[in-house]
Amino acid sequence: MSDRPLTPLLDRVRTPADLKSFSDGELRVLADELRAETISAVSETGGHLGAGLGVVELTVALHAVFDAPRDKLIWDVSHQSYPHKILTGRRDRIRTLRQKDGLSGFTKRSESPYDPFGAAHSSTSISAALGFAVARDLGGDSDTGHGDAIAVIGDGAMSAGMAYEAMNNAGHLGKRMIVILNDNEMSIAPPTGALSSYLSRLYAEAPFHTLKDAAKSAVSFLPEPFREGAKRAKDMLKGMAMGGTLFEALGFSYLGPIDGHDMSQLLPVLRAIKTRAHGPVLLHVITRKGKGYAPAEERADRGHATGKFDVLSGEQKKAPSNAPAYTRVFSDALVAEATRDPRICAVTAAMPDGTGLDRLAGIFPSRVFDVGIAEQHAVTFSAGLAAGGMRPFCALYSTFLQRGYDQVVHDVAIQRLPVRFAIDRAGLVGADGATHAGAFDVAFLSNLPGFVVMAAADEAELVHMVATAAAHDEGPIAFRYPRGEGVGVEMPERGVPLEIGRGRIVREGARVALLSFGARLKEVTEAAEALGARGLSPTIADARFAKPLDREMILRLARDHEALITVEEGAIGGFGSHVAQLLAEEGMFDEGLRFRSMVLPDSFIDQASPQDMYAVARLNASDIEAKVLEVLGVARMGERRA
Amino acid sequence: MSDRPLTPLLDRVRTPADLKSFSDGELRVLADELRAETISAVSETGGHLGAGLGVVELTVALHAVFDAPRDKLIWDVSHQSYPHKILTGRRDRIRTLRQKDGLSGFTKRSESPYDPFGAAHSSTSISAALGFAVARDLGGDSDTGHGDAIAVIGDGAMSAGMAYEAMNNAGHLGKRMIVILNDNEMSIAPPTGALSSYLSRLYAEAPFHTLKDAAKSAVSFLPEPFREGAKRAKDMLKGMAMGGTLFEALGFSYLGPIDGHDMSQLLPVLRAIKTRAHGPVLLHVITRKGKGYAPAEERADRGHATGKFDVLSGEQKKAPSNAPAYTRVFSDALVAEATRDPRICAVTAAMPDGTGLDRLAGIFPSRVFDVGIAEQHAVTFSAGLAAGGMRPFCALYSTFLQRGYDQVVHDVAIQRLPVRFAIDRAGLVGADGATHAGAFDVAFLSNLPGFVVMAAADEAELVHMVATAAAHDEGPIAFRYPRGEGVGVEMPERGVPLEIGRGRIVREGARVALLSFGARLKEVTEAAEALGARGLSPTIADARFAKPLDREMILRLARDHEALITVEEGAIGGFGSHVAQLLAEEGMFDEGLRFRSMVLPDSFIDQASPQDMYAVARLNASDIEAKVLEVLGVARMGERRA
Repeated sequence: MSDRPLTPLLDRVRTPADLKSFSDGELRVLADELRAETISAVSETGGHLGAGLGVVELTVALHAVFDAPRDKLIWDVSHQSYPHKILTGRRDRIRTLRQKDGLSGFTKRSESPYDPFGAAHSSTSISAALGFAVARDLGGDSDTGHGDAIAVIGDGAMSAGMAYEAMNNAGHLGKRMIVILNDNEMSIAPPTGALSSYLSRLYAEAPFHTLKDAAKSAVSFLPEPFREGAKRAKDMLKGMAMGGTLFEALGFSYLGPIDGHDMSQLLPVLRAIKTRAHGPVLLHVITRKGKGYAPAEERADRGHATGKFDVLSGEQKKAPSNAPAYTRVFSDALVAEATRDPRICAVTAAMPDGTGLDRLAGIFPSRVFDVGIAEQHAVTFSAGLAAGGMRPFCALYSTFLQRGYDQVVHDVAIQRLPVRFAIDRAGLVGADGATHAGAFDVAFLSNLPGFVVMAAADEAELVHMVATAAAHDEGPIAFRYPRGEGVGVEMPERGVPLEIGRGRIVREGARVALLSFGARLKEVTEAAEALGARGLSPTIADARFAKPLDREMILRLARDHEALITVEEGAIGGFGSHVAQLLAEEGMFDEGLRFRSMVLPDSFIDQASPQDMYAVARLNASDIEAKVLEVLGVARMGERRA
Repeated sequence: MSDRPLTPLLDRVRTPADLKSFSDGELRVLADELRAETISAVSETGGHLGAGLGVVELTVALHAVFDAPRDKLIWDVSHQSYPHKILTGRRDRIRTLRQKDGLSGFTKRSESPYDPFGAAHSSTSISAALGFAVARDLGGDSDTGHGDAIAVIGDGAMSAGMAYEAMNNAGHLGKRMIVILNDNEMSIAPPTGALSSYLSRLYAEAPFHTLKDAAKSAVSFLPEPFREGAKRAKDMLKGMAMGGTLFEALGFSYLGPIDGHDMSQLLPVLRAIKTRAHGPVLLHVITRKGKGYAPAEERADRGHATGKFDVLSGEQKKAPSNAPAYTRVFSDALVAEATRDPRICAVTAAMPDGTGLDRLAGIFPSRVFDVGIAEQHAVTFSAGLAAGGMRPFCALYSTFLQRGYDQVVHDVAIQRLPVRFAIDRAGLVGADGATHAGAFDVAFLSNLPGFVVMAAADEAELVHMVATAAAHDEGPIAFRYPRGEGVGVEMPERGVPLEIGRGRIVREGARVALLSFGARLKEVTEAAEALGARGLSPTIADARFAKPLDREMILRLARDHEALITVEEGAIGGFGSHVAQLLAEEGMFDEGLRFRSMVLPDSFIDQASPQDMYAVARLNASDIEAKVLEVLGVARMGERRA
């Protein structure tokens, strides 16, 4: 507490309305204080540091010029919203960021009226802002008022198709709305794609020093209807003359680029937009991720996400781990397979580091493709690679695979193309909360004809599943694994392909069978051990496959036990539902079977530690133990009734 | 048969290789014959006529210049592929188009080696072509050879985000590949969006007559590395000088626009591309949908899709219907609600006619938004409208809602925003086959916390569900209804909101309860009637809601009957799985319950009549009847065993 920064101006800000009385000079100082406060807070909580630091000045300028919450300020992805949260009445809780019962690491409608539209996945902000703009013009809700709709979106997020769809529609409708392109040449990884080169050319040709003066005359930028003023403005902002045509082609007025850390550019330009804009406007702002905090600026990812750290040194405080992370295990196993097989290649959507594909890219750069934030394309591009004779691994987080669902159905499953889906962050993910939970993949993949769907029970299983996927040319195959570290099992020398649709008995027992799918196996085993103290010895099986099911094993478990309980870290409709369908079809319920399916509950679970989130989900060992006792308890009651 | 066109040149074509011996003049005549053959075939089968007629010359030119199947020709959407099918060894079966056991109405890998990548949903072709191009350069499969990858994509399809994602990635990778933008100012409806205006400007400024000569010099178009030749080429094709920048910004060489019905432009330009292209090239071709067949050209949708028709008059042969189509019923009900409530508005993704929103647009033009082929944006835009206080209906086909799945989860469900999803074409759809089946929506929506998921049992129920959705401000709500006509029930005066989560007993019976979700209720009722002849009188219930379930009703049905059978026109993981989970949790299986869940089978079902497709799916009345007998038969056997 004692080393918290001094923030005399920031201390006067309760709501953004308080900024209205600040002079431009004071706003500049306020930005410095806000930066220091952001660094201090994240040093205590961990979180996305670099993104917020990059938009400190922009945040201050937006709140100084516009009138939230009447004006709708929509942060794309919104991991850059910590400074915004500090200015909008949440400073007292900012050191609870990403903690259980604390502030979300993203914007959230239920958290504040200053968060008109929550986010976490990228590229949604322009669509949402257009919705607000149109609702405003239609009279929408009287509470909503008639404010501006402002989307702040990064250059990486602009590579996603839905941003383009939204621009195309907004340009067509012609409603007044404001898109601020926060161009920091860095989404999570350095961005790839032609758009990124295009943006680089735009600002390469318009160096900042020529723009400072131009910005002062910004009042004449905007067409009102086109007169000579507009022409002058074009010449003034160099970027506009040569570039911006991509955005102009989509119906936007293009302004910029301007220096997003220079309040003397930001304030007049935003004021001009507020006063004069009609129709959709795109303001191109250049910022630097991690700006103003050397340890962040110096990191390769510019402080994208960080644990708790020491403010002075920037050094992270992280507990040492005992087992390798699943991502790393996948990465190593894929490198091993790709070394043996030149047809293996891999696709990531802007997550080379998060998915572990960066290591493969280091060894076989021509066989790894980072397509940008573009999951739809990632999936169909992988399908094309498969049709062209390659063995593509499409590595995505479970939650982002949702972006490419139709492509999974239409391009991969219907054509039975052997795309290998490596699904990371399956299950509950911790601090990133509900938006990043990998809850639905088993359900939405397992009902696709011809798909093979696996989940790794531990890190050794994951190695075998990578080998299984590599060897499977008959159709699509997916394997999922959770965020975080493995359980510390012995690792195999090399992956050995599993027999498709064959589970394994982990331990033979009696009365109750626990049928696990995925990494809850550890919790299942712990539950069984606890039950041992009560004289119960459950059978434990690892299904390995949600599709195709190991019919023989499952039916045997059902026949040989009073009760059968499935456990998975996924929503209803997945593994347990497929087991239930099998049991029903085979008439296993006809004569009575104590069947239960433990799945994620019917609620979105807020951020906390994964262990705490699984406690809320009632999927920890103690919950499994309780379920067994409950089910067998019911059995005893039934016997008494009979 | 007797009035089939004379096609002496076409009769000489067995494979595209046969075109190599034709002179340019013969190719021109061949195109005319191909057009006549296409019209003749579709007059017998029905199908997508306009799209194919628009690309007859392009099809001939592509096959004359390139070498399929070594070169990979990928038709986007591929409803324009009938002429391609005729030229690629399938002429003998062309009059089985879209029929059971006949040719697919789309390209299909399993149908022909000349279809390297199937399609039906739009905007996938560039991603797929890039996959082939990259696989080629990586050595992919020896069978694949080293041919060109060519995507033919319409201007409407270009509005979808995934096309942009693919362009962005292709421009970055810089591999040789060819995108042909088939610009016919018409996807299904006239296209909307800023891109469409941009394209119009491009060719407005480059009239064809100035291009014919230019095209002859096309050999000098392409950069080889940049010299004065490139500059000359720029001046030559006017479009290039002023426009094309959007595509150039994305890293493509832009050529065009040229007249897609003029072989003297098409052939030299394509030959130049084949000889000289390196890197990604976009050729902008202007065509007219329905070209060369007056009845198609004169229709508002230019013969997008048609039933069988008389070739001379263009008049369609359609059987009169007894009941209104579900789409029309939805349309009328929405108009009625919107008339009473100014906050109701609606969003369609390029389907104003198919979804029935055109009628609402005719009455309240400012409240209907056609966002183009852009389902991701459609969903999040709807979420923004809801957040802004409107009551948006997002009307999509079930199969296309898959495109916006992440947006449904992330922007709508997590934020509990009251977007109303009107899901048309739910279940099996007939001639459009597997790619258009609405099989998965119940599964992928019903596990989303806070969602309400309904299915209409008949057209009167649909009216009430529209009213229910209109009145439901508490969170997201979806209602699904099938393709085709209702069952002819009496229509209500006006829609009355249903109680959320409350089903209805249609008929009280004994021993077995048939619990229907959606429009199979008619088949369920017929099955029950047939069973009456055997002395059985099943209880029939209409669940109305897959979420929230009517727990009380379902548990009562389970308790009061020996057997409970759910019936739905959707895949596993949906309604039946939720019922199974409820029954399991409530211990209803513990003492025995003959439970079965009738769902779509684990296979993609090829095109046929919906009735035939449901026969394959075993979801017709006779199948339901057989299931009841089987389940009760098992019961009798069980009794005997005991």
